[in-house]
Amino acid sequence: MIDEHIIKELSIKTDSKIVLVVMDGLGDLPNKEGKTALEQAAIPNLNLLTARSICGLTDPISRGITPGSGPAHLSLFGYDPVKYQIGRGVLEALGIGMELTSEDLACRGNFATIDENGFITDRRAGRISTEVNEKICAELQKEITEIDNVKVFIKPGKEHRFVVVFRGDGLEDGITDADPQLNGKKIEYAQSLRPESQESTRIINKFIDRCLEVLKGHHPANAILLRGIAKHPDLPSMNDLYNLNPAAIAAYPMYRGLARLVGMSILDTGENIADEFVTLKENFQDHDFFYLHIKKTDSYGEDGNFSAKVKIIEEADRYIPALLELNPDVLVITGDHSTPAALAAHSWHPNPFLLYSRYIRVDEVRHFSEREFVKGGLGRFSSTDAMPLMLANALKLNKFGA
Amino acid sequence: MIDEHIIKELSIKTDSKIVLVVMDGLGDLPNKEGKTALEQAAIPNLNLLTARSICGLTDPISRGITPGSGPAHLSLFGYDPVKYQIGRGVLEALGIGMELTSEDLACRGNFATIDENGFITDRRAGRISTEVNEKICAELQKEITEIDNVKVFIKPGKEHRFVVVFRGDGLEDGITDADPQLNGKKIEYAQSLRPESQESTRIINKFIDRCLEVLKGHHPANAILLRGIAKHPDLPSMNDLYNLNPAAIAAYPMYRGLARLVGMSILDTGENIADEFVTLKENFQDHDFFYLHIKKTDSYGEDGNFSAKVKIIEEADRYIPALLELNPDVLVITGDHSTPAALAAHSWHPNPFLLYSRYIRVDEVRHFSEREFVKGGLGRFSSTDAMPLMLANALKLNKFGA
Repeated sequence: MIDEHIIKELSIKTDSKIVLVVMDGLGDLPNKEGKTALEQAAIPNLNLLTARSICGLTDPISRGITPGSGPAHLSLFGYDPVKYQIGRGVLEALGIGMELTSEDLACRGNFATIDENGFITDRRAGRISTEVNEKICAELQKEITEIDNVKVFIKPGKEHRFVVVFRGDGLEDGITDADPQLNGKKIEYAQSLRPESQESTRIINKFIDRCLEVLKGHHPANAILLRGIAKHPDLPSMNDLYNLNPAAIAAYPMYRGLARLVGMSILDTGENIADEFVTLKENFQDHDFFYLHIKKTDSYGEDGNFSAKVKIIEEADRYIPALLELNPDVLVITGDHSTPAALAAHSWHPNPFLLYSRYIRVDEVRHFSEREFVKGGLGRFSSTDAMPLMLANALKLNKFGA
Repeated sequence: MIDEHIIKELSIKTDSKIVLVVMDGLGDLPNKEGKTALEQAAIPNLNLLTARSICGLTDPISRGITPGSGPAHLSLFGYDPVKYQIGRGVLEALGIGMELTSEDLACRGNFATIDENGFITDRRAGRISTEVNEKICAELQKEITEIDNVKVFIKPGKEHRFVVVFRGDGLEDGITDADPQLNGKKIEYAQSLRPESQESTRIINKFIDRCLEVLKGHHPANAILLRGIAKHPDLPSMNDLYNLNPAAIAAYPMYRGLARLVGMSILDTGENIADEFVTLKENFQDHDFFYLHIKKTDSYGEDGNFSAKVKIIEEADRYIPALLELNPDVLVITGDHSTPAALAAHSWHPNPFLLYSRYIRVDEVRHFSEREFVKGGLGRFSSTDAMPLMLANALKLNKFGA
């Protein structure tokens, strides 16, 4: 990938508009009949668009490497996913819709059960209901709002899971999990892995003590375990790097959170693909870059539900004509990573990548699919090259050198 | 290529089995009739397998770079061949079957003829016979077993060539050749190129003096020249990096030596391809990764013998059904580098690479050849990505990030 400092130097402000549609987990593997979800789906509009576009296949990280959602998206947004790693606590906070600032330290938490001697009898507190979890979090939040000038935000997840965010000057990560990982062991305090994180570790351990006090008698949720303690990654913004005024349209909190990390404006939208395309149309004049995220291709892939994945692809296909009516200067339709129904999980397989603009060498590919795109004019490339390619096609990049 | 530390973090132990068949120097150039050895050969089994596989072309180092056997193999084993360079002395020692430890410093040697004033009259001592060489080496080894607590191992090669290995604490390379390269010049001592190698240089020069004493009167082999003085590269093992228990099946010592460098178990085998496949079958339950090396495609390429290269490819083809009966989870058939008969030498041309597993997007290629593989679903890639790709297809890699 090109160094981000070079892109920053070359990028210029123009009126042209870029739309990046990410169909999460789009890539698939052939089913028993030898077809991928894309090959099975009736997608006349995507196929018509393919015939006017140039296409290829992308690797989010490197061949053979299966990415999580964080690195897969960062890569598409033009950030080196190995250089900029997002900690588990931060992703979890984004996933439940917490808005983070660059000061924040975030952790995943479990409610757990301990006996009178502090030994863990159940790491998941009997999988308490989400409703009980919400009540406990509200009580903890009421009792604990600040520790030594560091603000504390506690928010419930599902069942026994919650997230805690610490906000204050000089917080640092590089801290062990406060979790022995096994029932039958004593609960543990966090430990600092480097001098800079000692003060943060002290705050976290004080928080654990406060929780133990408040939870005393709250059987089965009478203790907490903390994992994935991570600092906000404080990424350079897309505006800073690319001179863009970017906006995100995403029904799921995690993806709004990822977009916020790179400085996108988050547009209010509904739960469905239809809502997302309405949001795009309504805001089309106000931004020069749109990231539109379609989640359910991934969800059904993760469920191993091939036919539902096919249906979602067919549903997305129906919005292509309306999208083209907006007349974006550059349109990319791709996935962040593959989620084959056959694996019911993210995978390492490359993503179909379609690029539509005035300035392309239209190739011979006529069908939108993983295997047709092997023959595409863009060939095989790193997802991190997607942003320079979109910017170039929008005439938003100056010449490098003279 | 992906950083090896990331692969190390992601790799997990599973029961799945990987077989990597390397047909040395497999790639070829069209002959006068316009056919490469692969295009000329009758290979029904490889073609049937191709129809069920995904394929592509690999570059061992970089486009246009012709690799030696060492870097070409390291690359296939997932090691950056530019970062991990194997010195000539070490490769020569491996080539004649010496087993090296990580303490060793190895050198190639020539027996030479000098006159009474120490001037070289023949750098090859009249190309003495291998038998004479063996006798001289035995005599030297009898007289010189240790120098200042450093063990010395001397082993004959062909004609005037031999290898000497020094084994002891703290030996270092960064030492000039002890060889003026020309007849008519005085023999030279080695010189240290950095402070850390001064002690090793002293040992080597003491060895040269001891040899000159013993060889006095042994005309024409009355002196030695030492070149390619190199430390064992001490590579991380494949077990350490990939969590594998790998085994090598190779008829030729050099390839067993290369496999030993990356920590493979070396399985006893015979001289023929048939023997190698029997060895694979007999040991199939005991390892999770097998490297099977077929040498003669390269040997006949080096000889410029196109038709013999064709015949070896046809011979290898006959073992494919038995190989598939073992039901490996992942099977790769490829070359380490090209050795076109037309060049009678290694070349820079990319290698056909076939990948067979449950989790592939089978492509449209139906014939196993350099030019058909241009259309393959894997595209063109670096040989260093072969290991991550095999591990991924064997479900031996965790997700990167969340």
